[in-house]
Amino acid sequence: MDIYSKRRAQKIWSVLRFPLFLTGQRYISQAAAKIDVDFDYDGPLMKTEVPGPRSRCLLFVFSCKNAEAVHFFCNYEESRGNYLVDVDGNRMLDLYSQISSIPIGRRQLYQSFLFCPQASTFINRPALGILPPENFAERLKESLLSVAPKGLPQVITMSCGSCSNENAFKAIFMWYRNKERGHNNVTKEELESCMINQPPGCPDYAMLSFMGGFHGRTLGCLATTHSKAVHKLDIPSLDWPIAPFPRLKYPLEDFVKENQQEEARCLEEVEDLIVKYRKKKKIVAGIIIEPIQSEGGDNHASDDFFRKLRDIARKHGCAFLVDEVQTGGGCTGKFWAHEHWGLDDPADVVTFSKKMMTGGFFHKEEFRPNAPYRIFNTWLGDPSKNLMLAEVIKVIKREDLLNNATHAGKALLTGLLDLQARYPHLISRVRGRGTFCSFDTPNDATRNKLITIARNKGVVLGGCGDRSIRFRPTLIFKDHHAHLFLNIFSDILANFK
Amino acid sequence: MDIYSKRRAQKIWSVLRFPLFLTGQRYISQAAAKIDVDFDYDGPLMKTEVPGPRSRCLLFVFSCKNAEAVHFFCNYEESRGNYLVDVDGNRMLDLYSQISSIPIGRRQLYQSFLFCPQASTFINRPALGILPPENFAERLKESLLSVAPKGLPQVITMSCGSCSNENAFKAIFMWYRNKERGHNNVTKEELESCMINQPPGCPDYAMLSFMGGFHGRTLGCLATTHSKAVHKLDIPSLDWPIAPFPRLKYPLEDFVKENQQEEARCLEEVEDLIVKYRKKKKIVAGIIIEPIQSEGGDNHASDDFFRKLRDIARKHGCAFLVDEVQTGGGCTGKFWAHEHWGLDDPADVVTFSKKMMTGGFFHKEEFRPNAPYRIFNTWLGDPSKNLMLAEVIKVIKREDLLNNATHAGKALLTGLLDLQARYPHLISRVRGRGTFCSFDTPNDATRNKLITIARNKGVVLGGCGDRSIRFRPTLIFKDHHAHLFLNIFSDILANFK
Repeated sequence: MDIYSKRRAQKIWSVLRFPLFLTGQRYISQAAAKIDVDFDYDGPLMKTEVPGPRSRCLLFVFSCKNAEAVHFFCNYEESRGNYLVDVDGNRMLDLYSQISSIPIGRRQLYQSFLFCPQASTFINRPALGILPPENFAERLKESLLSVAPKGLPQVITMSCGSCSNENAFKAIFMWYRNKERGHNNVTKEELESCMINQPPGCPDYAMLSFMGGFHGRTLGCLATTHSKAVHKLDIPSLDWPIAPFPRLKYPLEDFVKENQQEEARCLEEVEDLIVKYRKKKKIVAGIIIEPIQSEGGDNHASDDFFRKLRDIARKHGCAFLVDEVQTGGGCTGKFWAHEHWGLDDPADVVTFSKKMMTGGFFHKEEFRPNAPYRIFNTWLGDPSKNLMLAEVIKVIKREDLLNNATHAGKALLTGLLDLQARYPHLISRVRGRGTFCSFDTPNDATRNKLITIARNKGVVLGGCGDRSIRFRPTLIFKDHHAHLFLNIFSDILANFK
Repeated sequence: MDIYSKRRAQKIWSVLRFPLFLTGQRYISQAAAKIDVDFDYDGPLMKTEVPGPRSRCLLFVFSCKNAEAVHFFCNYEESRGNYLVDVDGNRMLDLYSQISSIPIGRRQLYQSFLFCPQASTFINRPALGILPPENFAERLKESLLSVAPKGLPQVITMSCGSCSNENAFKAIFMWYRNKERGHNNVTKEELESCMINQPPGCPDYAMLSFMGGFHGRTLGCLATTHSKAVHKLDIPSLDWPIAPFPRLKYPLEDFVKENQQEEARCLEEVEDLIVKYRKKKKIVAGIIIEPIQSEGGDNHASDDFFRKLRDIARKHGCAFLVDEVQTGGGCTGKFWAHEHWGLDDPADVVTFSKKMMTGGFFHKEEFRPNAPYRIFNTWLGDPSKNLMLAEVIKVIKREDLLNNATHAGKALLTGLLDLQARYPHLISRVRGRGTFCSFDTPNDATRNKLITIARNKGVVLGGCGDRSIRFRPTLIFKDHHAHLFLNIFSDILANFK
């Protein structure tokens, strides 16, 4: 923003006083007429470069907030379906959907909440753990419990993904310790030592994680996150074991044997680490893994790899925690990505957030805390998010959006493979499950340039890892959106210098 | 719940199908007529014991969730002003207000949001860090920034109190490390070692906390929480220094010298710990403290203690973090409790949540992260909470609710002192600032019995520490509510056996 002098910004600021869209008031009055027809636009419509003058000016006056990551400012009233509209009136096909956190087209929820008979749920946020509203069990049943992974009948809600993983770790540590003490009573020494952060009350337990994984940014989560230095630099951490995640070679059918060996090597390392850490009196109580490492670069492993990892966890008495914060909610074609694996014995704990609108975790009965207030905080989530999730799930079922994700994902992946064949110097390692697709570019600079060009042609993309581009559309992304994108991107690649 | 057989529960369950209040639909249609007159009730109205049959039955069928802490189920549609209505139709004066998280009477917000022209803000939750809505800076200005503590012009929003403290720690660690490296470039060794949780990338930094403090339940926060074993047992922790918090004797005027000595002892210990930990190469980067230790038992210290602590932090180059998650928002008679101290040099970081409806932290300019994505997550709060907070702040100003907290708090404290004089075997150490009042009972059992009796007489109270009762009403708690409570509680004490 250093290209703007303060005076110039003040001049531009005066422009901001006359909004391009007088939406706040207008939308409501048109809602009844519009709601059934206006779920999506028919294509991108670009008026300026992005960020446009209005966005840049807003950024300049936005000095009170950690704003360096801001891409541009948005007009959410005018955004709809698969399209994001910015404050300069640019309408873009959105394949990143708020870092993968939008489940369905937003207009669809308007229908249910615009003249909201549930106003109280939005306004009156209760301390759910102690004073739940009457309909809370029912609300859980029609939202989270209606999509619970098989074998995990229990759920606890949290406000965000990091808190979900933090509390899942805690449930695992408690479970492990209870096992260890043989359900004997807690000793006085444990009760006293825990108050000053010392063992045996605070035992030297660890979660095993994988290089390239991302599980959140609070201190406990961060000790299991290993995707980018910017997340971790300068923050004290814990000496917890970190295993290698398979680095598969593509196309998969050409490297069957190499990839099997690579996965076997990683699994062996997991077992070695568990043993090695136990020898130095640090107990691996659980293993955490993403079905597809997302932030770390959309790294996949085979279903067989995950089945074997689950077996290793059981063999060594460790809990198996599947982090579905980014993969959950249907985008892989199943509601939970780990359902593709065909596990005999379900995961022990599954965490979620983002598209699920509320954070939280599912768990097996035996991971239920053995006393009140052990897994607890003031809010424990937010019932208004459960209310919205219930609506989202209704739409997913009614419109068969899981099958849509499989179908549209196939259209996208097929198109990407075609582009890879035509532009192998720009696109490699095309991969994906459902619409959860991605590809690699030669390097960071090329990747970022492609994202910027695409944005100015009306397509919002997201990066991950050090050179990948990831697709994270909503569940209403259809075949024709895939083709729309592929046409635009094909032109971009043809003209890329 | 073991008094209920499954069959009996099923029988009762059939009762649940006919709700006592048909509120979901009814409320809306009456809203226009009721909204201006129905902000509060005129007193408790009890129909059953609490929890009543309907609450107990709901608890019984509520088997899918960590429900052991649930007190009873609520009817939030019928609750208003200072009163909480449960599902059995019991109307109770609420002096605990969702663990201190309700700022003003809930009906007051209905007026602004019932036919909500801002529906989009409630439904379309953005990834605030990268794609904020156009009005976001403005919304911050009219909400959080309009009440920023003096000297702290920067704010970052988070979803809850724990995430606020976790991220405040991170901002402090980054600030300290930047100071230490003299703003030189980050080394390759730092970038590599941080990925595997090792120094120098993950330096051995610590936050100094106080015995009895509560700062949240995620792993980083939990290393600074020392109020109850139930929060900490079985969870691995960090070797961070823990100083004693003054244990003042009451009445304060009778123990001036002892209390001064006690505070001096604690401050000396703080300095000793900083030096001792530095000797073992563990650097105290910051000090975290609550203005009144809440969960730990409503422990107060003098303004002078906090001023001296701030000086110690500055002297040793540590950041001074004031955790106002429970004390903030006006209940002490100032918007921030630490404003009572009269600091020359402001705190470096102030965290908040609960009554502020959104979590987050204010900080000095120099604690602003030096690069994008360092303090970051998907949602970074929720604009719908800022929207509500803006309305709350309007009401606080319009109705002069800070002065009301001072005034009503005085009525409450005076009455409690009177009860203490009459029932010294039941009530001791009466203390408070604004309505943030509390007293001690002889022991845990007596405390819990008093809370239960009060509830059945129509008053919701909360406990803290091992024998205290804390008052956490909303900001619309007035003198007459204090007298109403004091009359009921006086009867309870007179008949207590």
